[in-house]
Amino acid sequence: MAEAPGAVRPTVGLLGGGVIGGGWAARYLLNGVDVILLDPAPGAVPRLEQVLSAARRALSRLTLAPLPPEGILTITDSVKTAVEGATIVHESAPERLELKQELLARASRAAAPDTLICSSTSGLLPSRLQAGMEHPERFTVAHPFNPVYLLPLVELSGGERTDPATLERAGAWLTGVGMHPLTVRAEIDGFLSDRLLEAQWREALWLVHDGVATVGEVDDALRYAPGLRMALMGPFLTYRIAGGEQGMRHFMAQFGPALQWPWSKLTDVPDLTPEFLDLLAAQSDEQAQGRSIPELERMRDDCLVALLQGLRGAGQGAGATLVEWERELMRAAAARHAPGAGTGGADEHDEARPLELVARQIPAEWIDYNGHVHESRYLQLAADADDALLARLGVDAEYLRDGGSYYTVETHLCHLGQLHAGDAVTVATHVLGGDEKRLHVFHRVMPAGAAEPAATAEQMLVHVDTTAGRAAPARGAVRDRALALIAAHAGLPIPDRAGRRIERSRS
Amino acid sequence: MAEAPGAVRPTVGLLGGGVIGGGWAARYLLNGVDVILLDPAPGAVPRLEQVLSAARRALSRLTLAPLPPEGILTITDSVKTAVEGATIVHESAPERLELKQELLARASRAAAPDTLICSSTSGLLPSRLQAGMEHPERFTVAHPFNPVYLLPLVELSGGERTDPATLERAGAWLTGVGMHPLTVRAEIDGFLSDRLLEAQWREALWLVHDGVATVGEVDDALRYAPGLRMALMGPFLTYRIAGGEQGMRHFMAQFGPALQWPWSKLTDVPDLTPEFLDLLAAQSDEQAQGRSIPELERMRDDCLVALLQGLRGAGQGAGATLVEWERELMRAAAARHAPGAGTGGADEHDEARPLELVARQIPAEWIDYNGHVHESRYLQLAADADDALLARLGVDAEYLRDGGSYYTVETHLCHLGQLHAGDAVTVATHVLGGDEKRLHVFHRVMPAGAAEPAATAEQMLVHVDTTAGRAAPARGAVRDRALALIAAHAGLPIPDRAGRRIERSRS
Repeated sequence: MAEAPGAVRPTVGLLGGGVIGGGWAARYLLNGVDVILLDPAPGAVPRLEQVLSAARRALSRLTLAPLPPEGILTITDSVKTAVEGATIVHESAPERLELKQELLARASRAAAPDTLICSSTSGLLPSRLQAGMEHPERFTVAHPFNPVYLLPLVELSGGERTDPATLERAGAWLTGVGMHPLTVRAEIDGFLSDRLLEAQWREALWLVHDGVATVGEVDDALRYAPGLRMALMGPFLTYRIAGGEQGMRHFMAQFGPALQWPWSKLTDVPDLTPEFLDLLAAQSDEQAQGRSIPELERMRDDCLVALLQGLRGAGQGAGATLVEWERELMRAAAARHAPGAGTGGADEHDEARPLELVARQIPAEWIDYNGHVHESRYLQLAADADDALLARLGVDAEYLRDGGSYYTVETHLCHLGQLHAGDAVTVATHVLGGDEKRLHVFHRVMPAGAAEPAATAEQMLVHVDTTAGRAAPARGAVRDRALALIAAHAGLPIPDRAGRRIERSRS
Repeated sequence: MAEAPGAVRPTVGLLGGGVIGGGWAARYLLNGVDVILLDPAPGAVPRLEQVLSAARRALSRLTLAPLPPEGILTITDSVKTAVEGATIVHESAPERLELKQELLARASRAAAPDTLICSSTSGLLPSRLQAGMEHPERFTVAHPFNPVYLLPLVELSGGERTDPATLERAGAWLTGVGMHPLTVRAEIDGFLSDRLLEAQWREALWLVHDGVATVGEVDDALRYAPGLRMALMGPFLTYRIAGGEQGMRHFMAQFGPALQWPWSKLTDVPDLTPEFLDLLAAQSDEQAQGRSIPELERMRDDCLVALLQGLRGAGQGAGATLVEWERELMRAAAARHAPGAGTGGADEHDEARPLELVARQIPAEWIDYNGHVHESRYLQLAADADDALLARLGVDAEYLRDGGSYYTVETHLCHLGQLHAGDAVTVATHVLGGDEKRLHVFHRVMPAGAAEPAATAEQMLVHVDTTAGRAAPARGAVRDRALALIAAHAGLPIPDRAGRRIERSRS
């Protein structure tokens, strides 16, 4: 959430701190937005801490983009405190119409008239929810998905009295915190996703009820094939591809008749007898293999992170949302770090010290068959530090577009210790020398709390005119800042390992 | 598919070369299995070539494990030729009962009595399919998913006359080519996956029919959140997590009543009027944004590869299947490359030349913001060559388990050219020197057809006793082979860039 200098910090009011409310809190706080959360329950704080800790871990693995300083969390037992002064309010109370109506009505009286007020309901109609509200025109359903801090989808659905501009405002705001708003065209129970899921869920219950499959087998029937496709495309694109070049009409001609086959019992539901519930519970226990909910959640989050990263690489679906969010984070960080931005924070430190431009936790997917971080990842950390250094010098999207860039031409890596998944590391960057064309840098990969680096990387970067395809001096402010930094680091002691070569060892 | 020395090569008979039959062909051929395919249609060969080319691209990006030499594809117009001598037969004809019955019956008469005979039907009952067969006990449905060469799920469903041992044999065989067999406990139309998908599909059609959403919006309602989860877990585990530590019983108590809400029209189907079909076709065209089916398939495959790699990192679901398959590929490759295995192939070349142990195509996800391969990937290529070198020396899972390994302690990289997505490269590895504890290697990353390397990587590897945590001599045959290779390479000319250091450049 980039903000103009001097702007009032936006605040979010959250009504309810359960799975969904806690997820909203985590998404907002990690996007640098302050949150005031209504939750009078005694266990609220430790539960929120747990969600926040899971979200911090997940986002640190999800993106290398610089997250802003975390927002401030305030917990209150007053609706008024939660909503007054809020830019947006999310109600995430249990799915009971009267309870939600009452809470939304109270919030609407306490909030400023232009505060956006949203409900996280997964199926109740917006016209009914907004019935008792003041200024109902600023109300919309904004239905997110668990875990809210990772999954980008949020369904927007306005009621009869909702101003269309409300949907636009809510959509723009939610896009700013990395979400993908999807506006539902008509008021309908369950909106889109939950109707599609509910259809499948009923069929799943029948399959277990009739002994055709266990709960684990039903899940496997999805996750080993159709579910993989569904992470990137829904049924319509899937079937378009199956239908070949002749498009959807051809597919429907081929498979439309199959819709009349008696393949489901979908509007019926099995009676939830004690016996059937026993069966479900026992099979579910077996499927969980003794894993606790936090363990399962961590597995889920790790997989979601990996899936989102995969889709980001392909630029598709939720991966494209992630790319947009990262761009926004980069823009916001550039605004914070810009020369003269005067944040007074950690970035303002003395330039005559090695720079600490990278801090991150080692993700599990960096581990090789020896249980150590794969050697190429040490170079990735060095390259990340180079990227951060270049950003600091002012090498931005515009500079790149104008044909200026630095390329690494040579690297010398020394492996001195081992890193493991979850280790926190920083990279300390010392500019050993250079000129208007070159930057000679020395990175130390420092495990948190360690006196000695786990690895060092000495590198030579050359400034390139990418249009001409040859080395060329850096330009304008980038050149000036590079020369200033070279000068500022000139007095630092030369590291032991600088200038090393691999000694010949012919036996 | 590891095979005993001197064993007859297994052959697969495929009846039908459409989307599914072609996918089977690709999966088998790339797993080193010979295929005889029945497809009298004139366009069969170019269509199969296209599938094979897509599959080669996908698998080269999916895994670094060594794929075996491709199997041999024979196309025939005779059922007898396709099935006689086959270990297993897959019928993938159009979904018409009589057509399939007739084809399966003919195949059963021509095949050896113990040949496994499978149908790829997505919904017809196995008891009906096997009705006219000889030796119906060796019949099972083996229902795969498109693209068959990437998605691991295969549903197995036997009929009344199927021998349970047939399901076991088919399951073990399919596991060997990287699939995840799932046996359905009862005969039921549509098996598991298609019933679950059909339920969702009917609801999706209603949503579009009623103007609640476009086809693109329905797809988005899945792929931006629920579909991501579904790549790793089905509804039961998802809802278990939502229900918290109290398990499925608690979830059902909370959400069971919602099953009675009138949220779907699922057993009804919208009339497929010309107007509705027009609407579907137009929206589907819009969603495709002019992309052809091959373009969409490539996007899909790239995403699936990325998703599978993500799940592999997390060791979950289809990722676990991938890990198992890679282990099998490694075992098979080790058997092929073992000293004395005498394959007579490319690996038998003169040891007194640099070794070419890595050959691959650059995947798109290796590209950085400059449009070049990220610098850390050059080191990954070098590390891959090290891994292949160590495998050649006999460093295998057992050697690692016994506490022996080589660690890289130092690397010097020179970047000399640029690689782009899709470029084919090999890595030429020259052992510059070493002794029983050390290997001093020099890798050249060679773009296909180029005279000069795109990068060089000089590395020092040290043999380690991982139990004691210190450098130690290599053991047994690994030591002997290492010393022999060092001696064999001793006469090779020293590369120009060996022993380089980064020159100080303080300005």
